[in-house]
Amino acid sequence: MAATIIDGKAFAARVRGQVAEHVARLKEVHGLTPGLAVVLVGEDPASQVYVRSKGKQTVEVGMASFEHKLPAETDQETLMALVEQLNSDPSVHGILVQLPLPDHLDEEAVLNAINPAKDVDGFHISNVGLLGTGQKAMVPCTPLGCLMMLREHHGSLSGMDAVVIGRSNIVGKPMAQLLLGDSCTVTIAHSRTKDLPEVVRRADIVVAAVGRPEMVPGDWIKPGASVIDVGINRVPAPEKGDGKTRLVGDCQFDSCAEIAGAITPVPGGVGPMTIACLLANTLTATCRAAGLPEPEGLTA
Amino acid sequence: MAATIIDGKAFAARVRGQVAEHVARLKEVHGLTPGLAVVLVGEDPASQVYVRSKGKQTVEVGMASFEHKLPAETDQETLMALVEQLNSDPSVHGILVQLPLPDHLDEEAVLNAINPAKDVDGFHISNVGLLGTGQKAMVPCTPLGCLMMLREHHGSLSGMDAVVIGRSNIVGKPMAQLLLGDSCTVTIAHSRTKDLPEVVRRADIVVAAVGRPEMVPGDWIKPGASVIDVGINRVPAPEKGDGKTRLVGDCQFDSCAEIAGAITPVPGGVGPMTIACLLANTLTATCRAAGLPEPEGLTA
Repeated sequence: MAATIIDGKAFAARVRGQVAEHVARLKEVHGLTPGLAVVLVGEDPASQVYVRSKGKQTVEVGMASFEHKLPAETDQETLMALVEQLNSDPSVHGILVQLPLPDHLDEEAVLNAINPAKDVDGFHISNVGLLGTGQKAMVPCTPLGCLMMLREHHGSLSGMDAVVIGRSNIVGKPMAQLLLGDSCTVTIAHSRTKDLPEVVRRADIVVAAVGRPEMVPGDWIKPGASVIDVGINRVPAPEKGDGKTRLVGDCQFDSCAEIAGAITPVPGGVGPMTIACLLANTLTATCRAAGLPEPEGLTA
Repeated sequence: MAATIIDGKAFAARVRGQVAEHVARLKEVHGLTPGLAVVLVGEDPASQVYVRSKGKQTVEVGMASFEHKLPAETDQETLMALVEQLNSDPSVHGILVQLPLPDHLDEEAVLNAINPAKDVDGFHISNVGLLGTGQKAMVPCTPLGCLMMLREHHGSLSGMDAVVIGRSNIVGKPMAQLLLGDSCTVTIAHSRTKDLPEVVRRADIVVAAVGRPEMVPGDWIKPGASVIDVGINRVPAPEKGDGKTRLVGDCQFDSCAEIAGAITPVPGGVGPMTIACLLANTLTATCRAAGLPEPEGLTA
């Protein structure tokens, strides 16, 4: 195995440490406690785990955490009213509505009701537009985490050939914008791409965000390239016993790690960075709202 | 010369004809006259020519044209008040503020004050965000014109390798979004791209939008590729006499036309399509505002 393993877990811990330092200073110097409100509608078990984990880490870095759990049958009006209330609450600097919402709710409308300045998920169309025109935005957490790891590993990304596999609004498209902002030559590939192996083989940076278990084998990777694996796929693991499962990424880790220069593992790569970036975004939102300089290195 | 010449002038005339038919029907059936307001601040000669040409073509397709010419020393407040007035005027379906604005005015703030539903230039961050998430948007006119010509020539663009040279907010970035929306594999290249000739050589579709006279020679073009030349550059033409000039694109027309399968000339390619798409956008905005079905083939 040749590649440097990019330890997302350790990196995320460092980011949380930096955030905690800034939070301590905000409290001490400005009497200001950043607050993150998380809204969960319904009982989706995975969402409950995420929300619990977010709440715990929010408190650990010294921020205030506000959890709003609503029953699955909550109607649009009630949810919109809650968002409005959080928008106007000065102790709330970041608002996250946990997705997916139950089917009867209009996700788009809810996300776009959030004050863009508090939209720490970066999904509001205003933030998409700001990012898409190279302005200061709230940047979606997962691609922001990927960018931070790439910057940390490479320093400047300027002039590198980057390929993003997947064109989702949550990862692929904002990732492409961020890499373009750092002056990569960016290619966005997807299910209709004609010769994906060949496209991936040209890349100095590969970001895989498709959600297909181990679809990228090592022989697609250019020797020495950096591989950022966003996929988190649960697959059967009969070798661990009947009915057991394990997590894999969108890349075949072993074969990619033999060829790549650097690679993020799954789990322990991109995953932990996502919540760390949520906290970083909440800090950034707090500083912007207070007219204070933004902490360096914690946003795009 | 092998390439099909994509006649933007003729295509634009057809688009205007379609728009005019729709406008006639809107008037007859719904008593509705689409209106386009154009705001010009100052005396920039090129802008004056554009505005005159826009006004003329607006009237020719049967729409109402409202021209607002303000002195160069107009202050931000006055301009914002005019935008507000146009936002709330029901006879105005499209608003265009001619760029560039004089230096003392905040262009960003003015563009983002326009009601996104009337933002026929597609520069409001909400429209950038809508386009960037694959939703219904007002699409910037120049890239929309390029897309229409490519669709007309190729039918489906799905799976084609497209390279956009230039990453401006007005052309390059929205062009990339549109090509991605039509399922091209899209690469965005720019001044920091390492091996631009090689990147361009892989492309089935090349959109050049850099503003550098004749920077793309024919030997960068893959045989049979489609070349869309957005550049309009005025260069000295001593062969026409002392002090004379001529217009050239970002591509070397003769050498590219020998290799390409199709190419847009300069002038007479992308240029005329831009105003035609402005009229198409105004029609689309009118239909959306009235809750009527949008005309087909006139937006992304």
